[in-house]
Amino acid sequence: MTNKPSKSQNTVWHHATVTRERHEQLNGHRGIVVWFTGLSGAGKSTIAHEVEERLHRLGCRTFVFDGDNVRHGLCSDLGFSVEDRTENIRRIGEMTKLFVGAGVIALTAFISPYRRDRERVRQLVGDKDFIEVYTRCPIEICESRDTKGLYQRARAGEIQDFTGISSPYEPPEQPELIIDTSLESLERCAERVVVLLQQRGVMITPKGN
Amino acid sequence: MTNKPSKSQNTVWHHATVTRERHEQLNGHRGIVVWFTGLSGAGKSTIAHEVEERLHRLGCRTFVFDGDNVRHGLCSDLGFSVEDRTENIRRIGEMTKLFVGAGVIALTAFISPYRRDRERVRQLVGDKDFIEVYTRCPIEICESRDTKGLYQRARAGEIQDFTGISSPYEPPEQPELIIDTSLESLERCAERVVVLLQQRGVMITPKGN
Repeated sequence: MTNKPSKSQNTVWHHATVTRERHEQLNGHRGIVVWFTGLSGAGKSTIAHEVEERLHRLGCRTFVFDGDNVRHGLCSDLGFSVEDRTENIRRIGEMTKLFVGAGVIALTAFISPYRRDRERVRQLVGDKDFIEVYTRCPIEICESRDTKGLYQRARAGEIQDFTGISSPYEPPEQPELIIDTSLESLERCAERVVVLLQQRGVMITPKGN
Repeated sequence: MTNKPSKSQNTVWHHATVTRERHEQLNGHRGIVVWFTGLSGAGKSTIAHEVEERLHRLGCRTFVFDGDNVRHGLCSDLGFSVEDRTENIRRIGEMTKLFVGAGVIALTAFISPYRRDRERVRQLVGDKDFIEVYTRCPIEICESRDTKGLYQRARAGEIQDFTGISSPYEPPEQPELIIDTSLESLERCAERVVVLLQQRGVMITPKGN
């Protein structure tokens, strides 16, 4: 230790100098939450990953949150009761808020069936940083896809509180975007999300242009 | 909708194509957790912010987690009992793991007094992605700083379970780095952390160089 001791009373106490704005300037785009909501099998996760792929190619910093990386991790102590779903969405909301603070485009793919829970996240994150994408698809088509075999298990009574079967889904009343994966191609849905982000000014125009 | 409908059975189900490696290549550095542990007033948050400032100037993607943005948010339902502290650190660990997955350098500034809790995070995140920085400082000096007036309140019995006063602190046995803010300047401490990250190969050398 060749440096002089810094006596406690002389220490300069720095705090957050790297603000959200500086993260965003470095990234070339704003941080924002793109919140996909819809039934199991509607295509939320698929679209979110396709949107991420397109944004990444544009040089954006992104991250996709879905059941795979959250339900087994941060929320591994939670089930599917109304209370647990609410707490699940609350935590995801808090976490995405931090990603937004880091200047990241956070894409979330959760059924998030309750309007009230989604509205709380919107209020938490802030209206201008929250884009709700209603990923619409008739339940018959979701069920016919049944990529994970969940509908079959829910029909057999092996899964309790399954959204659309034994638990309600409340569609958004005023989402920023509605995509319908039974009518539109994956590519078209993803393109519409990216265009909306561009229209909302998420990409920062370099200074001097 | 001019696009042809994509029938469910024909839908191509894309999943995560933007891997951690692609995030890291875009960022020019690896994702990693730098976990500061130590008493209240030892300087964890101050050093973490100074390290962030330096890394940001090097073009790195960073984020600092501390009581300000986690205790009031993600962990607002938790107190300071042993169980709640454990759950607090578990959630922070899970969250930082996701930031690492996004290729971000996650700097955490929490007392995190229990060795077992910190070891769990290390195991969760993975040894090579976890740098434990023991931010050492004699409690007398921490108490003399008492920037938030917490020690005074703890001595007066107004705060229960206060680490170092009425709750134990377990120092790391084999931290990757020990800094001592009673002996070294803020600048020196921050520099040592940045140098360690460089030595560990966190910055990616551009291909072809």
